[in-house]
Amino acid sequence: MASTGVKIAYIGGGSRGWARTLMCDLAMEKDVSGIVRLYDIDVSAAVENEKIGNALNKKTDSKWHYIAVPSLKDALSGAQFVIISILPGTFDEMEVDFHLPEKYGIYQSVGDTTGPGGLMRALRTVPMYRDIALAIRQYCPEAWVISYTNPMSICVKTLYSVFPQIKAFGCCHEVFGTQEVLKTVYLDSVGPEQKSVLEKTVKRQDIKVNVSGINHFTWITSASCNGTDLFPAYDKYVRDNYETGIEYTGNGNWLNNSFSCCHRVAFDLFLKNGAIAAAGDRHLAEFCPPEWYLKDPETIKKWKFSQTSVDWRRQDLKNRLEKTKRLLEGTEELKPEASGEEGVKQIKALLGLGDFITNVNLPNAGQVQDLPMSAIVETNALFTKDAIHPVLSGLLPAQVNGLVSLHIGKQEATVRAALDGNLEAAFAAFLCDPLVAVPAENARKLFDEMVYKTRKYIPYYNACLKNP
Amino acid sequence: MASTGVKIAYIGGGSRGWARTLMCDLAMEKDVSGIVRLYDIDVSAAVENEKIGNALNKKTDSKWHYIAVPSLKDALSGAQFVIISILPGTFDEMEVDFHLPEKYGIYQSVGDTTGPGGLMRALRTVPMYRDIALAIRQYCPEAWVISYTNPMSICVKTLYSVFPQIKAFGCCHEVFGTQEVLKTVYLDSVGPEQKSVLEKTVKRQDIKVNVSGINHFTWITSASCNGTDLFPAYDKYVRDNYETGIEYTGNGNWLNNSFSCCHRVAFDLFLKNGAIAAAGDRHLAEFCPPEWYLKDPETIKKWKFSQTSVDWRRQDLKNRLEKTKRLLEGTEELKPEASGEEGVKQIKALLGLGDFITNVNLPNAGQVQDLPMSAIVETNALFTKDAIHPVLSGLLPAQVNGLVSLHIGKQEATVRAALDGNLEAAFAAFLCDPLVAVPAENARKLFDEMVYKTRKYIPYYNACLKNP
Amino acid sequence: MASTGVKIAYIGGGSRGWARTLMCDLAMEKDVSGIVRLYDIDVSAAVENEKIGNALNKKTDSKWHYIAVPSLKDALSGAQFVIISILPGTFDEMEVDFHLPEKYGIYQSVGDTTGPGGLMRALRTVPMYRDIALAIRQYCPEAWVISYTNPMSICVKTLYSVFPQIKAFGCCHEVFGTQEVLKTVYLDSVGPEQKSVLEKTVKRQDIKVNVSGINHFTWITSASCNGTDLFPAYDKYVRDNYETGIEYTGNGNWLNNSFSCCHRVAFDLFLKNGAIAAAGDRHLAEFCPPEWYLKDPETIKKWKFSQTSVDWRRQDLKNRLEKTKRLLEGTEELKPEASGEEGVKQIKALLGLGDFITNVNLPNAGQVQDLPMSAIVETNALFTKDAIHPVLSGLLPAQVNGLVSLHIGKQEATVRAALDGNLEAAFAAFLCDPLVAVPAENARKLFDEMVYKTRKYIPYYNACLKNP
Amino acid sequence: MASTGVKIAYIGGGSRGWARTLMCDLAMEKDVSGIVRLYDIDVSAAVENEKIGNALNKKTDSKWHYIAVPSLKDALSGAQFVIISILPGTFDEMEVDFHLPEKYGIYQSVGDTTGPGGLMRALRTVPMYRDIALAIRQYCPEAWVISYTNPMSICVKTLYSVFPQIKAFGCCHEVFGTQEVLKTVYLDSVGPEQKSVLEKTVKRQDIKVNVSGINHFTWITSASCNGTDLFPAYDKYVRDNYETGIEYTGNGNWLNNSFSCCHRVAFDLFLKNGAIAAAGDRHLAEFCPPEWYLKDPETIKKWKFSQTSVDWRRQDLKNRLEKTKRLLEGTEELKPEASGEEGVKQIKALLGLGDFITNVNLPNAGQVQDLPMSAIVETNALFTKDAIHPVLSGLLPAQVNGLVSLHIGKQEATVRAALDGNLEAAFAAFLCDPLVAVPAENARKLFDEMVYKTRKYIPYYNACLKNP
Repeated sequence: MASTGVKIAYIGGGSRGWARTLMCDLAMEKDVSGIVRLYDIDVSAAVENEKIGNALNKKTDSKWHYIAVPSLKDALSGAQFVIISILPGTFDEMEVDFHLPEKYGIYQSVGDTTGPGGLMRALRTVPMYRDIALAIRQYCPEAWVISYTNPMSICVKTLYSVFPQIKAFGCCHEVFGTQEVLKTVYLDSVGPEQKSVLEKTVKRQDIKVNVSGINHFTWITSASCNGTDLFPAYDKYVRDNYETGIEYTGNGNWLNNSFSCCHRVAFDLFLKNGAIAAAGDRHLAEFCPPEWYLKDPETIKKWKFSQTSVDWRRQDLKNRLEKTKRLLEGTEELKPEASGEEGVKQIKALLGLGDFITNVNLPNAGQVQDLPMSAIVETNALFTKDAIHPVLSGLLPAQVNGLVSLHIGKQEATVRAALDGNLEAAFAAFLCDPLVAVPAENARKLFDEMVYKTRKYIPYYNACLKNP
Repeated sequence: MASTGVKIAYIGGGSRGWARTLMCDLAMEKDVSGIVRLYDIDVSAAVENEKIGNALNKKTDSKWHYIAVPSLKDALSGAQFVIISILPGTFDEMEVDFHLPEKYGIYQSVGDTTGPGGLMRALRTVPMYRDIALAIRQYCPEAWVISYTNPMSICVKTLYSVFPQIKAFGCCHEVFGTQEVLKTVYLDSVGPEQKSVLEKTVKRQDIKVNVSGINHFTWITSASCNGTDLFPAYDKYVRDNYETGIEYTGNGNWLNNSFSCCHRVAFDLFLKNGAIAAAGDRHLAEFCPPEWYLKDPETIKKWKFSQTSVDWRRQDLKNRLEKTKRLLEGTEELKPEASGEEGVKQIKALLGLGDFITNVNLPNAGQVQDLPMSAIVETNALFTKDAIHPVLSGLLPAQVNGLVSLHIGKQEATVRAALDGNLEAAFAAFLCDPLVAVPAENARKLFDEMVYKTRKYIPYYNACLKNP
Repeated sequence: MASTGVKIAYIGGGSRGWARTLMCDLAMEKDVSGIVRLYDIDVSAAVENEKIGNALNKKTDSKWHYIAVPSLKDALSGAQFVIISILPGTFDEMEVDFHLPEKYGIYQSVGDTTGPGGLMRALRTVPMYRDIALAIRQYCPEAWVISYTNPMSICVKTLYSVFPQIKAFGCCHEVFGTQEVLKTVYLDSVGPEQKSVLEKTVKRQDIKVNVSGINHFTWITSASCNGTDLFPAYDKYVRDNYETGIEYTGNGNWLNNSFSCCHRVAFDLFLKNGAIAAAGDRHLAEFCPPEWYLKDPETIKKWKFSQTSVDWRRQDLKNRLEKTKRLLEGTEELKPEASGEEGVKQIKALLGLGDFITNVNLPNAGQVQDLPMSAIVETNALFTKDAIHPVLSGLLPAQVNGLVSLHIGKQEATVRAALDGNLEAAFAAFLCDPLVAVPAENARKLFDEMVYKTRKYIPYYNACLKNP
Repeated sequence: MASTGVKIAYIGGGSRGWARTLMCDLAMEKDVSGIVRLYDIDVSAAVENEKIGNALNKKTDSKWHYIAVPSLKDALSGAQFVIISILPGTFDEMEVDFHLPEKYGIYQSVGDTTGPGGLMRALRTVPMYRDIALAIRQYCPEAWVISYTNPMSICVKTLYSVFPQIKAFGCCHEVFGTQEVLKTVYLDSVGPEQKSVLEKTVKRQDIKVNVSGINHFTWITSASCNGTDLFPAYDKYVRDNYETGIEYTGNGNWLNNSFSCCHRVAFDLFLKNGAIAAAGDRHLAEFCPPEWYLKDPETIKKWKFSQTSVDWRRQDLKNRLEKTKRLLEGTEELKPEASGEEGVKQIKALLGLGDFITNVNLPNAGQVQDLPMSAIVETNALFTKDAIHPVLSGLLPAQVNGLVSLHIGKQEATVRAALDGNLEAAFAAFLCDPLVAVPAENARKLFDEMVYKTRKYIPYYNACLKNP
């Protein structure tokens, strides 16, 4: 049960986050070995990762070779797996995404998925993803493609729109966080004696959940652990802790340390809808009418979730760059330890080294009954040898299905607008976003200003000026 | 090609509007004759209509007999057609529906379909419709059921939820109004010479439209007349007249006289979405985020559509009662003239006396691809002998499909909540309404107050108090 | 309400049947005029039709110009409508299709749609239709494409497989024949007095039918005329005339003169299934197990339908060629009279000159609930300005749905096999045909022999020999 | 992770096969305990099983109590799980099912699923299953219902037709047999050295398969073991062993001992279709045209599969009765050993004691794209706490999809006919069975004779005589 000579292409291979998470996970992996080709528009970042990856590999029993390559073609030719995690633009654009809407009283918590920021980010990302899809069609049409970039649904939709036969899926760990919450709830419910036993053995994966919806606005409609239905315990927990929420104390996962929330938004959504919203509050809040959680900074504070400001991101990058330097100098070492992410597990399953079920973003082929066919939905799926079979997920609460559909419509319109290079069509989608709850003339001003300030990454900007 | 002995049951048979429209249309009808049984909880109103109807019939060649009956059973037994047009509650409840939300800054233009008012009206109407559906199942399960009551989609959904084999459909003339607008646009586009010829011959029905969406938030995705695609002309007209709109001067249709609008909302929705919103602005506005058209009275004024205040309704009823008095005294006569409504034409088609195509509200059986199956959708359908075959309507613009889906989710949740007698579930739907753009605590206060003040017509009110 | 300058491309423009039917219908048409470009691999036949068409046009008020062109490109460039009616191969191949299976005890009545003959014909036709689809994509992607060639479903499926955005549909007059039968039944049922009145006024089109299924195995699940449900009358008629059938006496339609049947097969299928099989018996019989109607010549005789032998076709062609000669010499004239076909009416409707509903073959987009999506199904559809909207057709009797699905599976497999150039895959489909009720080794021999003898028109024949 | 006090109702609790298999499996089970209520129309058989079951339980650590009860109500009240395995009628009826068609040259191999025998068996079983469904609705509507009776698809369809909210599924071990074949193929392919290692560790469950189709005509469209795609190895194996097949040597499973086949039918179907037919040849053959495998006894012999004659069944029953006697006398003991069946594993998963994926028969809710919605299909499904989530199974080869659909249509028609008590409708379905390849008049005679001879178990027989 081993696989050698596996060829992975990493698009965005200079990444100082996801790429290194993958390196660590691969370093822990004894049954699979091969080569990872790192491609990045920031060539030197890819070269740095080549060094870091190979250094890490030497310290372990794993056999992975990293090589930075200068083109998409070099990365993709012969690849069995393609990983995409790119940053569309720079923090300057992200600054526009996140902070400019505040001028009009629109507050966001992340700004990378939905809302004005998510849409702008989409306008930049779709053209990049189109190019990647075209290259995959040309160089490795049979490869499995794992997409990590936000806005997730829009990126995956772009891949399938451009190359319908692509074998792509989108991955996200937000549901895992909700499983951790449910684990806490479960252990809290069994009594102190049992808890002391169970907290040593119960893992996140033991929290069985049925998943439905779209990325970052995902829902759990049933959950159990060891044969216990967790909904009654969750309901009690939510009612008992509604005001305080559940303080997330973080674990080793680098991504979540500074992205904390108290799950009060999830709690509130549960009381309203009877299903568990399965993402961090920062993401959930952005899909709802602003009056609910994002009206203004005070409201956000009351709901106890953080906004991921661009200043924080800049500082975070600075830390990462310094760490990179230390890694390259050898004054610090990357530790080969499992990240909790599932990318490597998915790759192994697709190689036939162990079936498993996890949540994943795929075009709707019937797995969610009341959402449009071929919308990108997030449900459980069975990963097995060279196949992913989505699992039928049943019905969402009707009003939740309505909210999810609203966003699907907006996403679909955004992808089409960006592929067509039509900013007027993009504005029509922009206006339908619940967060854009401002007078239409302000919405227009905001849209135009955001577009203008990020035009460097909108290749169709000039053409639209000419043909408005 | 004639049909005699046709049996019609009219639920809400004391109606001073729709019932008399029907009487006039039947009086013009030579090929069909029979009996109309009028049932109303206001027995005397039904008795008055019996007199008025029979008096009208005497004056014409038509052969329709009207009889007021004291029970649903009496009305329905043996009926081939059932018409339902009821008023759920009184103007006092409508006052709550329409005006109470203003206290929290929520403005509505009609308040009978969606928004806080539409939902409250649903909470009252669903139990009545459940009883009617059960009675139809018992007394005339094979009858065709024509529903005119608002909220239309919710009423039709209730009928099918309670008695899935029912042969029911919902009818509304709002699309006709948009056809009239398109006729104006068409005549305006052909040049003065041709116009003088065509305005004598072109009828509303000659404006061919493809219809999709839900009642009162219906969309026309293609339109033509005499082989001319009307979209370019409409586009030009909208751009030329965006600020002023198109003044509706009214015709003999009683319903529209005081319900005027300038179609600026429809114009604006067209520019955003590229499809023609096919209802009066008063209805369209209520389905959109309030910032667009219903932010406050000034905004409404700017968009040039009227709010149908309850004071107006009270005055209107007073006028109708006086007219009724005169009709009974014989000092005024009902004129046998065609109303423009299609109920009688539909009945004739179902009797096999002439196929035709018109827009109608039915459960989605595939006629709209990207909306949930069995949601009540409005599309064209072929009416023929004992059958209605919906016509496939193609795709809506994606963001419009999202907005429509949002409302479908809310409607579905509302019907279930009302059938289950669960006010908490109703509140979850209430919160998802775009018009409820107020802080959640205000939404709660408003909901509770509205429910309390209309509790006389909410049969499950007390049970919910006990089991919150 | 007139349209000038209409551009029609006629592929198979040397046709001595359909092409001249079209000419006659166009000659009767006053509201539309334009040009018909005739393309045929038999160039001289197209040139002859150019002459005949232009001669006919001169004699009438119509304004249609015919011109033979030397290439697909010339025919298609700028075309608004494309008509395809081609003969795939010659009568020699048809001889193989029809008569060779008799050697193994397999009898067919037409051999152009299903059964061994239909499949062989498909293997020849699909490559031609692929080329046509590619040319349409290149030269007139927006054109409406009307396909008349058999096997109809397979031809239309090929068009959509090769060019998914094509606006193509398949037309067939078999349902019209069943409407004629129903007209006879209706007139027979009203009593002699009414009959003498009605037979002057009732037209085929007045027989309203709901159509579902696939071409040549189409079903009518409800029918009425003048408000009378025709199923009871048809049921009585079938029982009264089961043994004799209904003798078809023919009319001026060239296609049907020698293709007579007595509808005993349709009668029998009605008694079994409760729905009316809506094609001539020659076609219906071929879709059923051979024991039912095609066991041997005696069985066929008993059921009173004719086999369309290739000898007859050869004689028929000879007659047509002689007639062509006379037409060119001027010793005979084409009469400008309506054919009963609907092609011109459909073109007019698509130009916006009159909506109407008729049966048509299109990919299933939801119009038939229990058949696979995107299978080519035949149902009613609304023809209107630049659009065809299929009408939801409800359910077929379950066992009929099963039989229809069997053929759809076979058709789908055949199209894929022919597009892939895979004769082994074609044989797998061949084996599943109910008519191929012979031992597998005989089936193989028959298949191989049929393929070999028609290999001239199977472009992938040699490649398959090499890679079996 | 244990569950106590589980309540199981066993309908057909006098069964000397499945019931005792369950007892043995429960006896091996340490984590679940409870009570099994045995109900059977043969009361004494149930009482015997009560004794045998309790005796077995005493010898093990398991804690299961068996009790024979006198009514459906007693069995079902409070049940969490219902198992149904009944024999519809006696061996006399099975004699008719199996042997009477031979008079007309129709040969069957089992006669309990499809073909004339399967249909007759359905006519007897559907009324029994209707009664059971009604009782479940009344006494334990929330229970999970496991159905083992043939014809499987028809039984499960009946349960859902009568009580749409039922939580029922059908289970069958035929796919397991194909997994065993694939295991053999796999071990054969790895070389002798690896084989000697792997044959000790590889279990049936390690053969990962994607399942689609209907019960007993189920298909595997992909298969792997330890990361190896098994299709190339299977293809080679089939070609190498096409003539001889693979001799099945049997294991301890009582059902299969005398039911042997050499999988030549499956091999042949693979070569035709490229997918693996996943049932024993006896079952597969009956779904195909008789010319393929069931033409006559010689053909059957050539394909090397056995017919399960009723004589064998009678002898088998005699053996079982004698064994029962010995078990009751104590001269023989039931051995507590795992059967390989999955019923107990499924129950545990539904109790939340371990998720797993297996193949199961459920209404199509989207898991098979091209088969009718709500047809009973067999695919993989995820069993988890109180839920079964079917897994999307992708597409079948098109011609296979056609064959499967043919049988689905027939099944649907049969269920409706039996529920309506309409023997004429049943005959229409009968005629569409591929095995009924005889002249229609013979088919009629056969049908009538079969019905007459089994009329004791067809409750609507007399009513149909009166109203033919």
